Amino acid sequence: MNDIIPFWEDHSIDTINGGYYTCLDTKGDVYDTDKFIWLQGRQAWTFSMLYNKVGKHGKWLDISKIGIDFLIDHAMDENNNFYFSTTKEGTPLVQPYNIFSDCFAAMAFSQYAIASGDDGVKELAKRTYFNILKRKDDPKGIYTKTTGAIRLKGFSLPMILSNLVLELEDVLDPEEVEKTIDFSINEVMNVFLDRDSGLIYENVLPDGSHDDSFEGRLLNPGHGIEAMWFMIDIGARRKDGGLIRKATETILNILEHSWDNEYGGIYYFLDAKGHPPQQLEWDQKLWWVHLESLVALAKAYGHTKDERVRHWYEKVHTYSWEHFPDPEHGEWFGYLNRRGEVLLDLKGGKWKGCFHVPRAMYQCWKSFEKIESK
Amino acid sequence: MNDIIPFWEDHSIDTINGGYYTCLDTKGDVYDTDKFIWLQGRQAWTFSMLYNKVGKHGKWLDISKIGIDFLIDHAMDENNNFYFSTTKEGTPLVQPYNIFSDCFAAMAFSQYAIASGDDGVKELAKRTYFNILKRKDDPKGIYTKTTGAIRLKGFSLPMILSNLVLELEDVLDPEEVEKTIDFSINEVMNVFLDRDSGLIYENVLPDGSHDDSFEGRLLNPGHGIEAMWFMIDIGARRKDGGLIRKATETILNILEHSWDNEYGGIYYFLDAKGHPPQQLEWDQKLWWVHLESLVALAKAYGHTKDERVRHWYEKVHTYSWEHFPDPEHGEWFGYLNRRGEVLLDLKGGKWKGCFHVPRAMYQCWKSFEKIESK
Repeated sequence: MNDIIPFWEDHSIDTINGGYYTCLDTKGDVYDTDKFIWLQGRQAWTFSMLYNKVGKHGKWLDISKIGIDFLIDHAMDENNNFYFSTTKEGTPLVQPYNIFSDCFAAMAFSQYAIASGDDGVKELAKRTYFNILKRKDDPKGIYTKTTGAIRLKGFSLPMILSNLVLELEDVLDPEEVEKTIDFSINEVMNVFLDRDSGLIYENVLPDGSHDDSFEGRLLNPGHGIEAMWFMIDIGARRKDGGLIRKATETILNILEHSWDNEYGGIYYFLDAKGHPPQQLEWDQKLWWVHLESLVALAKAYGHTKDERVRHWYEKVHTYSWEHFPDPEHGEWFGYLNRRGEVLLDLKGGKWKGCFHVPRAMYQCWKSFEKIESK
Repeated sequence: MNDIIPFWEDHSIDTINGGYYTCLDTKGDVYDTDKFIWLQGRQAWTFSMLYNKVGKHGKWLDISKIGIDFLIDHAMDENNNFYFSTTKEGTPLVQPYNIFSDCFAAMAFSQYAIASGDDGVKELAKRTYFNILKRKDDPKGIYTKTTGAIRLKGFSLPMILSNLVLELEDVLDPEEVEKTIDFSINEVMNVFLDRDSGLIYENVLPDGSHDDSFEGRLLNPGHGIEAMWFMIDIGARRKDGGLIRKATETILNILEHSWDNEYGGIYYFLDAKGHPPQQLEWDQKLWWVHLESLVALAKAYGHTKDERVRHWYEKVHTYSWEHFPDPEHGEWFGYLNRRGEVLLDLKGGKWKGCFHVPRAMYQCWKSFEKIESK
């Protein structure tokens, strides 16, 4: 509240064109003015979430509205698909080549509708959600580069859906919510979670089996762990202790497998067979991977009181707080090299905005409040 | 001849399906069997080049033919565009989403036509070349993700054309060759070379001015330096001393700007304004960047006898030979981290094949032979 949120309040608002600047250098100065739609949606969501859950400050609602208005005015094409990026003024730059912009826009609309009571935005959340569902089996559409000879499906989509559907509970019919939860649990825990290794694969064949290719062998530990706290939330909602235990074991499995025993921290990408990954950034330590792990461990500990989970929380916590925060200019660094040295000293960019840091801190805070109160 | 070439002769040939395996681990064992068309063309080119220029060994022609046959049988779609990748058997995996596969196929066909005297393959080289020209103003075609609001053009294409046209001299009419050389010189030296900084920008606006965006600020030092030896070859062919001097100064400018003064080596990517680049691998040291620099410096020194060039050759040579070769299992490592430690211990992958190492060694060898003989 005294560091992260003021950083974005002070530096990111585009008071001229609306929306947010997200490319902020180490001090918070804007170094690039393009607007990346993922991050517009994510920041609008964050400020509405703060308003809904932390305190009814008019400033937070106003900041959220700046992003909501930008999304409504500039982020959609004629079929209501969301662009990837626009100029600062809102001229589209990169086409809607997948549906993740749409997912974060839907989350933002839903939180803002709760905060503001705006029924038009609530409708928009609903419409965006169903548009995502319509596109979910062919998310890249005409921009698909693969021939279809090997039909890999990606983990990102069921993973995001499992969070999005809870975010949109106020907007959707209960049957729709339950149907999408059932779909997500099955995809995440039966299709993408590999029974033998206990790891989540990033891309699998339609039946969940593995393709021996760069994409088919890819592990993204941060994704897998983040999805597990979505599963724990679903488990808590459904009072499904089995799901919570399975998610907890998966978190521990992934951490054991992905922790860098030499320099500390969680690897960004790994190859399931131990071959060289194609991602040259595979050994880097990223802010969101560590934050999502803290959330997952905090939630898992709250439900299980498992000492292994507590041990891992302390380990990831110590690493994260020793390496990511910038005591001089505030906020967190996003990208460290394998040794934990700052690789890029930005506070925001094309992919890092006002989202993972505040969301994770809020989630950890509330998880520990619950633990204390018991 | 005793290390690099035998490594690929021994480990890369797919005797069952034809074509080459390029994903070779540190010992040369195949760890992925997909066939990447860039690398099929590049290896077929290398072995025909060796046959044409180093020695008429039937084995080299045979190895080249294995790749040529694979390209002809499996690499083209119904419009004669070249896929990006196929399975080991040749089933297309990734669509022809740009024209670089085609460029390397054309180079391979042309060298092989010289080596074998095969007129059909010569025709194919010609047809592929004109197909590239047809697509050159819209190289990504339907796979373009940008909206066209900001029309950046990329350096790769004029850069490759300036080399391709000399490679295809035996295949093309002299007027066509001169026309494409004129086009390439103008694009490379007037449009992409920035007069103020003396650096090559990777993406520019149609008039050569700069867009203040991640793509518009991107510098790729290895690309710039590699293009300069293509310019020196053109300068030598046209007896254009001015072009050679300008290319030499550009090599020196780029090296001064892109050398890592702390750990040595040439950065992979930089932002022209010194902002954080979006490429997380920006500070890594790549084999091809250093090899192409050695070629450029050897050629520049041969023409200019400039002591600054000699000094830089020695500096890059020392760094390269101390860091990239693998004395234990042969060939060169491709990817080092900023400190020069091996990041991926592969000898070949999706992008590294049998091309830059042997081509650079041949080019340096011949350049120094010329220098000695004078």
